[in-house]
This record gives sequence, C-alpha cells and structure tokens, in this order.
Amino acid sequence: MRFYTVSRNGKEEVLVGFPGGEELYSLAALGFAFQDMNDVICNMTKEQKQALEQASEEKKQAAAVALTEVTLCAPIVKPLQDVVCLGINYDEHAKEAGRFSAEAFGGERPYTIYFSKRVNRATATEEEIPSYTGLVDSLDYEVELGVILGKDAKNVNVEEAEDYIFGYTIINDISARNLQTRHKQWYLGKSLDGFTPMGPCIVTADEIPEVQNLQIRSLVNGEQRQSSNTRYMIQTVAGAIAELSAGMTLAAGTIIATGTPAGVGMGMNPPQFLQPGDEIICEIEGIGVLRNFIGRA
Amino acid sequence: MRFYTVSRNGKEEVLVGFPGGEELYSLAALGFAFQDMNDVICNMTKEQKQALEQASEEKKQAAAVALTEVTLCAPIVKPLQDVVCLGINYDEHAKEAGRFSAEAFGGERPYTIYFSKRVNRATATEEEIPSYTGLVDSLDYEVELGVILGKDAKNVNVEEAEDYIFGYTIINDISARNLQTRHKQWYLGKSLDGFTPMGPCIVTADEIPEVQNLQIRSLVNGEQRQSSNTRYMIQTVAGAIAELSAGMTLAAGTIIATGTPAGVGMGMNPPQFLQPGDEIICEIEGIGVLRNFIGRA
Repeated sequence: MRFYTVSRNGKEEVLVGFPGGEELYSLAALGFAFQDMNDVICNMTKEQKQALEQASEEKKQAAAVALTEVTLCAPIVKPLQDVVCLGINYDEHAKEAGRFSAEAFGGERPYTIYFSKRVNRATATEEEIPSYTGLVDSLDYEVELGVILGKDAKNVNVEEAEDYIFGYTIINDISARNLQTRHKQWYLGKSLDGFTPMGPCIVTADEIPEVQNLQIRSLVNGEQRQSSNTRYMIQTVAGAIAELSAGMTLAAGTIIATGTPAGVGMGMNPPQFLQPGDEIICEIEGIGVLRNFIGRA
Repeated sequence: MRFYTVSRNGKEEVLVGFPGGEELYSLAALGFAFQDMNDVICNMTKEQKQALEQASEEKKQAAAVALTEVTLCAPIVKPLQDVVCLGINYDEHAKEAGRFSAEAFGGERPYTIYFSKRVNRATATEEEIPSYTGLVDSLDYEVELGVILGKDAKNVNVEEAEDYIFGYTIINDISARNLQTRHKQWYLGKSLDGFTPMGPCIVTADEIPEVQNLQIRSLVNGEQRQSSNTRYMIQTVAGAIAELSAGMTLAAGTIIATGTPAGVGMGMNPPQFLQPGDEIICEIEGIGVLRNFIGRA
C-alpha cells in the first residue's frame, strides 16, 4: 500500500492507494480512524492492515478522492523526533565530498557516520525550498532513501531489522555546505526550516521486497545529476538499524535517511550549487517522484 | 519559580516552588490544569504566571506536597525534539579535548559547533546511568547549563534572545567517547538511552538575572572535577539562540545544552572514565544539584 498525507479544505488527512491501482482513498472514509500519519505508523495493527487491504470495491468507491481536490503534504508533516541521517554512505560520494573539503569529509571512515536533522515541518513535493540568500551560499541537494520504523527497535539483529520497518519514502537532504562545514558538526547546515523535502508518499515495506536493489536518482532542471542503486550503500538499512539500536531505542515513527550517492553539487568541478528558480527532482524505484523548486528568499 | 516533575502513585505531575521557600506545591491543586511540563513551558501565559505567584497562603497550604511522598523525574521527561547542543564551548575544555583526540576535537574553530542528542526519556536525579559494558569503554560526564525556550524563536536578535527563555536546568551530557569519535559525527555517542540526566528542576528565567555569571561544577565520587563559571562560555546563551534561529525555528520547548567546562574524564592525564558504581554530581549556582550513579550494565 501507499500512504499519502493531503490537505483538503484546510484539514490534513491520510489517503491510501493499493498495489496496481492509481486511485487514492480516504482512510477515514474507509472506516479507519487515525489522527495523522504518525498515528497510522505507530498504531495501525496487522489486523487493521489486512482489513484495509481487503476493503470492498463498494466501500472504496465511496471513499475515492480525486487528487485535483487536494494538496499533497509531506507524508509525515511533523516528524516525532529529529531525522537520523547516515553520512557518506555511498563510495563514489565519499570521493567527491573529500575533493570538496578534505577537512570536513576526508580521512578514514571505518565506521558509519550518523548525524541528525531537525525537522519542524517537512516540505511537500511541489513546494518551494527557501534559498536563504545572505546566510547560505552553497545550497545542495541529496536524494536519499527514507526508512520509517513502525515499532520501537532496541538491540535488534541485522536479520530481524526489516520486521521493524513500516515503509519507505524519498528524502531530499538539503544542505547548506557553508554552514555544514564551518560549524564542524553537520547539524545546523542540515536543519534550516524547509531543508527536508519528503514524499510523495510512504510505500509499505511489503511492497519493496529488495530494499538494497532500488534505482535512485536526481535531476536539476532536467539534467540528471545523481544515478545509482541502493545496492551501493556502504552501511545497509538493516545494518544501520542494528548498529543504532544497540544502545539507542529507535522509537516507532523514527525516520532514517540512508545517505546519498555521488553527483551532488559540491562534487561537480567546479561545484555548482542550487539557485533560486531551480527545479530538483528526486526519484526512487518503486516509491515515486519528489519535485521541488528553490525559492527567491 | 522552580518547576519539578514528580511521580506520585505512578502518575506524573508538575510541582512548583516559590522564591525563598523550600516547600513544593501541586500545580493542579493550585488550580492550574496542565498536562505535563512541556504544556507548562509552551502554554502557560504571563497572566497565569502572575496568578500563580500570587497564590494565597491558604491555597498553597492545601496544595503542599512532601517530597517524601513523591519520586523526582527529570523536569522534562520526554523532550519535544532532540536536545540542541553546543560543543567545545569553554576555552580550557577545547584544549583538553584536543589533547585527547586532535582528529576529533582539534583544529581551528572560528564558529560554534552545534550538534544534537536524541532523548527518548531524560534521566532523573538519583537515577542510574547505564554503563553499556561491551559497547562503551570510555563513559564520560559533562555538566552543562540547559536553556529551555518558552516560545517559538525565529530570526531573533542577540538583544531579544532572553525574552524567549522559559527557564534553566542542569544537563549532564553523558558521552561515550569511543562511539563519539569513531563515528565522526557526535550524535550516536551522545544519544544512547539514559545519556541525558536532567534536573533537578527548571528555574524560571526571571530568577537568574545574570545567566553568564553562574558557578558551574561537577564531582565524581566526591572529588571535584569541573569548576568554572558560565562567563567563560565562548558562545553565549543569547548568541547561540540568535545564530541558530537565523535559519532554524527553535520551537517552544526546545532545550539547548550550552557546552561543558574543562575537567571531563577524557581531559585527565591519563584519561579516567566513569565506572559502574561511580557517583556524579553536577551543580549550577541558583539551579541546584543533579546526582546520578553509573549502573552495572
């Protein structure tokens, strides 16, 4: 299934789509009362999921929503906690980042880099990303597979890790390279308001049988910049869940951004950063397309 | 005023203390209905604060709570978002950290270091801190002034910054130095469950007229390890709020840990880390004492 958050008449609600169909349905009209996407993620039971999948065509017809009636929001508008991010998690990206700043990104990396990103409100597909003229001189994109946990994970083995995953989404880990590098730790340069485009939906884990084999790419103004496959991730999704949860409870609702492949703006020669008016498209196989524009301010 | 979160008969509630008095009173019994401390921080109006300060002695007597009846919790049991932290924010601590690991902590630092710390549940005073034997070989303490914002801050000037502060607390920024350094970014080594002792209470901003002039110290098993004054902070509280809020909304309820003075375990020669059974006391003038023990596991 695919879950969307949309705004209809000023109110947010969750819509659901089923495998093989384009149509979307109101979860509430199908008889499932959840407050928002976080409530669905944390509290929808297996039985409810099965009942939802078996909803009758008659019920569905009455619950159908035309996308022209609604505005898409980020699937999780307000994450329950900061987004956990993996840094430098594709080999070729490690090389380009090291070329841009050996001090910030170079050196040996025997262990996965984890950092976090504050998200007061995730940016929807089609929405503008602020450019912060005057504060940011090096705005960059990073297409990443987003992993959303459906139950609390603590001390989870690599083998069991996928059982904890509710679903997947696309995250554009927008980064202000000047702030990211000058403050040493990456948190601030990644956490400005509007720096987390996410969407267009969450695809449930059962629809992605091989998470480490998905095409992933980005385009800026129609030009392909990043193109890779999640099989080239250095730390896997399951490996990250296991390593993080060894000491830290990953509570239900946790979002993990799993790192970006080569081809970001700072990796180009010379570096080429995002400018007001630019269109950025992020795509992951089996999930969809996340499209955003850079704003004037 | 001072606000405490306590557990009484298995239920959490907020208590309040007034300047010059030792007695604590149930906020609910005084007629103020708040769900928890975050609700107090984000939603208590100026008028309610004034009314609370003017509560009659008769009302107070009926609302008095003996500390023997309750267990102290961290003042904010579940932070609304990850704690924002300043790194290497006292000069002498910069030197000792650089001696321990030039790669992780050395070099030029013309800008403040910001990172974050996931806190699923803050640790109360008197509570155990897990030692994570097998995973952590270098457990360390860091006494820090915690700043709690009472309203959303965006684009705030240094001059106005204090208006956004609800109050102050003590945070012990427990750190696993082996994880902190090997994963490059500090997030994971700071975010293990139980790594954020906080308390004993929140002192409202009006009771701390000079936040950059407070004695701050820590003791391990009765031996003084850190002793400094908040006047030696490199980036001030107001400066951090201004710099962070230039691009990032610091929502009401935001907790900022403002960095630790010299004298942590990794700064000793040779380094001396926390062991099971150790007692750590953190003290800040005008706020109180936060005491914890290292657990066996």
